[in-house]
Amino acid sequence: MAGAITLERILALNAAYARCIDSDAMEGWPDFFLDKCLYVVTSAENHKAGFEGGVIYADTRGMLTDRVAALRKANIYEKQSYRHIVGLPTVVKNGGDTAECETPFLVVRIMHDGVTTIFASGVYLDTCREAGGSLKFEKRIAVCDSSRIDTLMALPL
Amino acid sequence: MAGAITLERILALNAAYARCIDSDAMEGWPDFFLDKCLYVVTSAENHKAGFEGGVIYADTRGMLTDRVAALRKANIYEKQSYRHIVGLPTVVKNGGDTAECETPFLVVRIMHDGVTTIFASGVYLDTCREAGGSLKFEKRIAVCDSSRIDTLMALPL
Amino acid sequence: MAGAITLERILALNAAYARCIDSDAMEGWPDFFLDKCLYVVTSAENHKAGFEGGVIYADTRGMLTDRVAALRKANIYEKQSYRHIVGLPTVVKNGGDTAECETPFLVVRIMHDGVTTIFASGVYLDTCREAGGSLKFEKRIAVCDSSRIDTLMALPL
Repeated sequence: MAGAITLERILALNAAYARCIDSDAMEGWPDFFLDKCLYVVTSAENHKAGFEGGVIYADTRGMLTDRVAALRKANIYEKQSYRHIVGLPTVVKNGGDTAECETPFLVVRIMHDGVTTIFASGVYLDTCREAGGSLKFEKRIAVCDSSRIDTLMALPL
Repeated sequence: MAGAITLERILALNAAYARCIDSDAMEGWPDFFLDKCLYVVTSAENHKAGFEGGVIYADTRGMLTDRVAALRKANIYEKQSYRHIVGLPTVVKNGGDTAECETPFLVVRIMHDGVTTIFASGVYLDTCREAGGSLKFEKRIAVCDSSRIDTLMALPL
Repeated sequence: MAGAITLERILALNAAYARCIDSDAMEGWPDFFLDKCLYVVTSAENHKAGFEGGVIYADTRGMLTDRVAALRKANIYEKQSYRHIVGLPTVVKNGGDTAECETPFLVVRIMHDGVTTIFASGVYLDTCREAGGSLKFEKRIAVCDSSRIDTLMALPL
């Protein structure tokens, strides 16, 4: 069944996304999204309250590309890295060429001196869509469990 | 092969279980178990010593339902959330309509002020069983690595 | 397709590897590798700089077996345990009887008094090879995000 959105493809998409960020290959990050997309980082509290905005809000791939460019400048004076541990996805709805998934994440931050701390935990609320043979995010809402979101957030979740 | 217990189904079961707890949809939690089941939370030390009991012990689904009701009352004065990061399952034995699996977990707790800490780590020792087209837990023993288990444990692991 | 290196087999290999270490079944650990293999634990900084060595370096399975023997002696006076949470693998290249994968990991350490801390995070850079019906590591480089690697590292990553 060509184009079916299998769990295997969803696993692979999530794995590749995390790898892109953690291996500092950020220039490839916007390619995980459709041109017209929604990428939001928000808190559980705000999400529950129905606020659409967030710490990060982008609704086109172009905005994501701009963000990467900004990060590259900002990163000149920073030296820290992140590691995303992505949990197991739940496919909430699977409708042929689009699927809704929820996937938990935990991100740790490694500072220059080697100290590692929990940076964020939460859940991705995603809509994935078949696009020319590959699976892309039409929507990825990263809902952070904590309301203490680092407003200088260097890298996307 | 209808009814085969594939790795994919085991992944999906584990993902759905964690999602149920973390999204505060606890009323659905007992449905992951058979009527006659065994759900235990214990420590590695006690498990190794062969003690059958644990911090939490339930051997019917009714006991799990009671537990949810109790939690709902207790939670009135609490405000904290949890995030389960479930690792990759190992299928230890797969015998047609039942499978034995071991799956590591890490749970972080997010307090009201946003501080996130490691709450528990350990491994689920499971027996899954085919039941009317869906996979359920006949047995889930959550063996915590640490002996310091929070005795006021608000949510199940 | 006999012998194909599917994502499912890669998931199972990673799960079994972590389980072997965390369940203190270390004598079985060398069996995850080919006779002629490469197992290295290093830091992201050293790996990026192109240094081939590492905190741990072994290029035969015999060296891994020796390491386990040494650990068993060293462990007489220690009492701590580890929990590996292995993330989702990305298959970077899949060429029939060999596959290159990258898989993130997070390891927590549980001390005797029950205190749990983040021990290491990083990524496995692997080459898996089909060997007599099972999948083995021809190469596993554990690249730790932090340069602060415990030089007394009791257990392998």
